[in-house]
Amino acid sequence: MQAQFEQHFKVRDYECDLQGIVNNAIYQHYTEHTRNEFLRTKLGGIDHFHQRGIDTVVARLEMQFKAPLRPGDEFVCTLNVRKEGLKYLFSQDILRLPERKLCVHALTTVVCVVNGRLGRCDELDVLLPGVESENIGR
Amino acid sequence: MQAQFEQHFKVRDYECDLQGIVNNAIYQHYTEHTRNEFLRTKLGGIDHFHQRGIDTVVARLEMQFKAPLRPGDEFVCTLNVRKEGLKYLFSQDILRLPERKLCVHALTTVVCVVNGRLGRCDELDVLLPGVESENIGR
Amino acid sequence: MQAQFEQHFKVRDYECDLQGIVNNAIYQHYTEHTRNEFLRTKLGGIDHFHQRGIDTVVARLEMQFKAPLRPGDEFVCTLNVRKEGLKYLFSQDILRLPERKLCVHALTTVVCVVNGRLGRCDELDVLLPGVESENIGR
Amino acid sequence: MQAQFEQHFKVRDYECDLQGIVNNAIYQHYTEHTRNEFLRTKLGGIDHFHQRGIDTVVARLEMQFKAPLRPGDEFVCTLNVRKEGLKYLFSQDILRLPERKLCVHALTTVVCVVNGRLGRCDELDVLLPGVESENIGR
Repeated sequence: MQAQFEQHFKVRDYECDLQGIVNNAIYQHYTEHTRNEFLRTKLGGIDHFHQRGIDTVVARLEMQFKAPLRPGDEFVCTLNVRKEGLKYLFSQDILRLPERKLCVHALTTVVCVVNGRLGRCDELDVLLPGVESENIGR
Repeated sequence: MQAQFEQHFKVRDYECDLQGIVNNAIYQHYTEHTRNEFLRTKLGGIDHFHQRGIDTVVARLEMQFKAPLRPGDEFVCTLNVRKEGLKYLFSQDILRLPERKLCVHALTTVVCVVNGRLGRCDELDVLLPGVESENIGR
Repeated sequence: MQAQFEQHFKVRDYECDLQGIVNNAIYQHYTEHTRNEFLRTKLGGIDHFHQRGIDTVVARLEMQFKAPLRPGDEFVCTLNVRKEGLKYLFSQDILRLPERKLCVHALTTVVCVVNGRLGRCDELDVLLPGVESENIGR
Repeated sequence: MQAQFEQHFKVRDYECDLQGIVNNAIYQHYTEHTRNEFLRTKLGGIDHFHQRGIDTVVARLEMQFKAPLRPGDEFVCTLNVRKEGLKYLFSQDILRLPERKLCVHALTTVVCVVNGRLGRCDELDVLLPGVESENIGR
């Protein structure tokens, strides 16, 4: 099954730590950057929302570390999103190229904060697969 | 209940992002630094192990984000550890001072890799509460 | 000669890179954090200014790397500031404890941007040695 | 005049700070990554050297900040290198696309440390313009 979105990366040496592999927290940066690039293609960047009093906020995160990335490795970070109640669940894999070996799996729960309170933000439904332009007038 | 270990921090401005709050991945750095400081008091630092062919590796991570930290905030990161099979489970809270308000809860699963393979490393049992110096001759 | 301000630090493992020493860019973070803490004690934080349309901006930076910091090292970052025209020059040393060995010397030129243009901002003169509260009514 | 090497980047949101622009220390990361990618194309990565007891070390750095980069900006970091005595001087520009507007100019002095002492390392001469494969047998 093909992912909804995929971002290409190459490990930068400064992202690696004492153990000679990418530091764990950096993988969270990779998944965040991939989500933000996906939002940018669909909605115009998180700053676009922020100015209208809407913030997307990470409420919860689960990561499984399967294999490390090393200096110079190329990889993709995939993204699929589904909705549960007010939550948007982003399922993401970090796959080392060229063999697309699974290095990290991450599940991130994002909610909307509207004017400072947890709220409904149906505009984000444009992120869901198959929604695209039918329901959302931009 | 008092935690086994507690590390004091103050937010640095460069750890905050566009939204004016600490970036999510930075909380993972805070929990990592707290674990490593704890290990350092008990065992002498992760480099000490590394030289003997033993690496402690994060296999899994869960984080719940309850409230953000802002520039200048002071906080502690607590640590409690228990063992399940070959896994060491670190339960950690990030608590904003002075009221010790829960900002982030993290559960991190650490395993040992001995000469490149998942393995037993009983020396880490010295990290468990109540073990201290009885069983472990250093 | 004693510095105007001094900030205490301890190296965090995640700040070290492949070579087993603190990554060069991290020293820039240390000097920035020290300047911001100094500003906070004198003026109330950079966000305080930002809201009034004033931003302090780094225009120029020089760093000399004399000796590396390693995991677990404790150190101070010192700060002295002088004014030249519209520029504030921050001279800072990173000194490894306990012997106060010079690791990095940094000279950072900061200017004020007032409503988007390079400008005069005499309030910052309170940062200069000997100015304190005499000339500046807060 | 065309640069010897050029690396393409896109700003990641997490590289921006409270002021909504890329944090100053991140530009140092950009220049470091560009140098390391250049070394990788010429010599096979800094780890390649490290294993033979040779480390390339930054001795000195000068940066001038002309204009900020913002979320989503694309840019290149250029590189030219020349030799002075035992020093390799890397002159680098960060140019915002598409107009190639100068944002940061950096001059970085790199020296070789051979078995722990400042030393001669003629293999690095392959980095100089016009040297390529004539003098260096790989």
